[in-house]
Amino acid sequence: MPAYNKVTQTITEALRDICGKGSVFTDEEKTEAYSHDETDAAEYGRSPEVVVLPDSTEQVAQIVKLANKERIPITPRGAGSGLSGGAIPWFGGIVISLEKMNKLLELDKENMVAVVEAGIVTNDLATIVQDEGLFFAGYPMSLQTCVIGGNIAENAGGGKAVKYGVTGRYILGMELVTPEGEVVRLGGKVFKDVSGYDLKSLIIGSEGTLGIVTKAIVKLIAYPGARSDILALFRTPKEAIDVVPVILTHGVTPTSIEFMDQKSCIASCKYLNETLPYENCGAMLLIELDGNNGIRIEMDLIETGKLCKKHGALEVYVAEDKNNIERIWNVRRNVAEAWKVISPIQSLEDIVVPVSRIPEIIPELERIGKKYNMEIPCYGHAGDGNLHATLVKDPSMSMEDWKKNEADCLWELYQVTNKMGGKISGEHGIGIKRREYLKELIDPAELRMMQAIKKALDPNNIMNPGKIFT
Amino acid sequence: MPAYNKVTQTITEALRDICGKGSVFTDEEKTEAYSHDETDAAEYGRSPEVVVLPDSTEQVAQIVKLANKERIPITPRGAGSGLSGGAIPWFGGIVISLEKMNKLLELDKENMVAVVEAGIVTNDLATIVQDEGLFFAGYPMSLQTCVIGGNIAENAGGGKAVKYGVTGRYILGMELVTPEGEVVRLGGKVFKDVSGYDLKSLIIGSEGTLGIVTKAIVKLIAYPGARSDILALFRTPKEAIDVVPVILTHGVTPTSIEFMDQKSCIASCKYLNETLPYENCGAMLLIELDGNNGIRIEMDLIETGKLCKKHGALEVYVAEDKNNIERIWNVRRNVAEAWKVISPIQSLEDIVVPVSRIPEIIPELERIGKKYNMEIPCYGHAGDGNLHATLVKDPSMSMEDWKKNEADCLWELYQVTNKMGGKISGEHGIGIKRREYLKELIDPAELRMMQAIKKALDPNNIMNPGKIFT
Repeated sequence: MPAYNKVTQTITEALRDICGKGSVFTDEEKTEAYSHDETDAAEYGRSPEVVVLPDSTEQVAQIVKLANKERIPITPRGAGSGLSGGAIPWFGGIVISLEKMNKLLELDKENMVAVVEAGIVTNDLATIVQDEGLFFAGYPMSLQTCVIGGNIAENAGGGKAVKYGVTGRYILGMELVTPEGEVVRLGGKVFKDVSGYDLKSLIIGSEGTLGIVTKAIVKLIAYPGARSDILALFRTPKEAIDVVPVILTHGVTPTSIEFMDQKSCIASCKYLNETLPYENCGAMLLIELDGNNGIRIEMDLIETGKLCKKHGALEVYVAEDKNNIERIWNVRRNVAEAWKVISPIQSLEDIVVPVSRIPEIIPELERIGKKYNMEIPCYGHAGDGNLHATLVKDPSMSMEDWKKNEADCLWELYQVTNKMGGKISGEHGIGIKRREYLKELIDPAELRMMQAIKKALDPNNIMNPGKIFT
Repeated sequence: MPAYNKVTQTITEALRDICGKGSVFTDEEKTEAYSHDETDAAEYGRSPEVVVLPDSTEQVAQIVKLANKERIPITPRGAGSGLSGGAIPWFGGIVISLEKMNKLLELDKENMVAVVEAGIVTNDLATIVQDEGLFFAGYPMSLQTCVIGGNIAENAGGGKAVKYGVTGRYILGMELVTPEGEVVRLGGKVFKDVSGYDLKSLIIGSEGTLGIVTKAIVKLIAYPGARSDILALFRTPKEAIDVVPVILTHGVTPTSIEFMDQKSCIASCKYLNETLPYENCGAMLLIELDGNNGIRIEMDLIETGKLCKKHGALEVYVAEDKNNIERIWNVRRNVAEAWKVISPIQSLEDIVVPVSRIPEIIPELERIGKKYNMEIPCYGHAGDGNLHATLVKDPSMSMEDWKKNEADCLWELYQVTNKMGGKISGEHGIGIKRREYLKELIDPAELRMMQAIKKALDPNNIMNPGKIFT
């Protein structure tokens, strides 16, 4: 563990001078909420020594300068909705929460960009711009709670990535406080830029280890007013997945192609007291189409439905009205919650493999599950190979056995993923949870490059240490 | 100038041992071709001491290891079609040309990716995959000559960027030889990846200063079989440009929205002995629409045409047959060549500004042109604010005056661009040509970050020195 200094009374006072008394607190009662994120398993919790709520980039810069001088670790925090421990203060120190920096600063309709503070909730931005006929297409499933700064830190993906890509594609510029407390503006309201290194893209997905994003220039697109969904049932996961490349190569680009195996679908339906027609079906695809024109969507819908039928779908249901669309997506969105009811103890994964390998990895999940005596339901973003294989503890298993099995099972799952040319995290990040596994699987030369960059930009290693590889 | 060692006979022999006698040459006659790229102005030419043509990543790695040990500068080279001097051996040393590494290694239709060597010509890749109904959407105007490795080094843009984005969006992975001669594989056949820093995106656009890309995993999409073009004439550049955000916010996303002012159009038509209906029109938009379905394109075409008419277009011509489309695009593609006939001495620029600022910058070009006594025709990618303002020498002006005026004019142009929130290069890169200007305009904190990264990854500064800021 790196040698850091403790937050003294003097430092706390200095933080109060920077942010004001009401924005700095040290009492357990208040700091507890900042000791964890949404990652399963309590052992990831760590208490900060102090939590600070700055309301300007200048304040963030002053805090970082102070921490860098005093060698105190900093953990930047957005909504705390992360799933890999990125916002957990692993070495104590200062948590800088951006919750007060949650404003839309500018909506520039002519250029189709929004300038926001990093703490703005994704759905708040989405709602405001929708009133202007615009759409923010970086769209994590947790959009009700997650904030743009956190999405940038994790390069968050989500359900619409097949058509729209992930967060990074929509970040044109940012204001960053470097680990040494300098304020730097990267990018701008421009759609092309090769004037120097693409530092912006290096920061995106670096999990807050290279600086704190305080503002972002976000690219918007025209709001896709028309939408339809297809629910296609297949005999087996393989048959379902085999249709994905067929659809993509055909020319219609769905917004999303989501996958649920039978056990995930049944679990979620039970949980919601919902009924979807999943009898005798081993897997289903939920295919969303959107665009600016209902007639086009209608055409895409018919084409896509035909393709599914032609390639082995048992049944193809079309949902064009809001209610039915919402019903189906509700089932998909609640799979994780449903499994928590069956067993609250689990490990939510987000491995990503080449789309063509999904049919191979699904039987592997079966095999590994049996071997370690746990259920591994699988659902997720089939269209981009990003699967939420979820290790679920059998209620009868002792916690001790679970801990051991979970670790061994994850290691085997990650190795299999790696062998198939995949990556251990497609959208949740490495954080604390996957750090030790990443070190084992990553090309040592790649790791050395990352370490060299980290050292160059954060010589005292105070910026979110303990994450990814740090 | 950094202190580098010279290429001795011993080193040349060592290079021959690595690549074979026929792949290493030092005689002026042969090396001359590697002393420049397509950047205007002869003063950018510099002779390499030796040119090496490796045919494998392993050979590249051995060459780099040797050069790093001996402190000899390396200049990686693709097709030499660059427009900022990126492939020019500014400090002599070794030019590593990837011309022999030009193979398509794998076409993986199921995952819609191609694995290529960096020296493959863009159009060769495009042609092969088209036969399989696939499309490589990173599409520079120079696709007939440019190679994928060079496109990656410059993050090349092009005419289709409005809809498809630039090169970087289609690079899923790469094999890189680091400045210390290590071989590292970044990314993979996955569409999402947050397993560590996004080094791939840092390398893209770094102009060969952080390593040599030897292979790339390229994302393909379904080939858009249907295509139509609109030629819309407007009274003034302002009226033409004002339509761009109207189209983009309406929901139809054209493949490209190209802009030509009257003098560019007239020049190109004269050059081609072509006639476009440009009488009384001050500017024109060339709008391309493509997709997988003719009926949809037809609908987009009608909508877009109506929008142009409604917003002040004098005339709207539709080109749906190959010949007419080719005729119009030919005019657009040949603007630069046409001006070369009028005056071979010019400076081709690629400034990028927020789309909404284009109407403001065009009169500025007029003003600056008058001030420095030169024509500045303007054309380019209006849909993403990327303009090819081109400084053209008046044939009657002395070279001495031109040199002085060109420098002052560029400086003023870049300052104006910067003031409008733009960047001095949208797709051609900084290279040698814009290095000194970039240093003046860039945020010093951003420059320090770039320098720190460069030093961390290339401690001896042997990898393409003299470019961007190095």
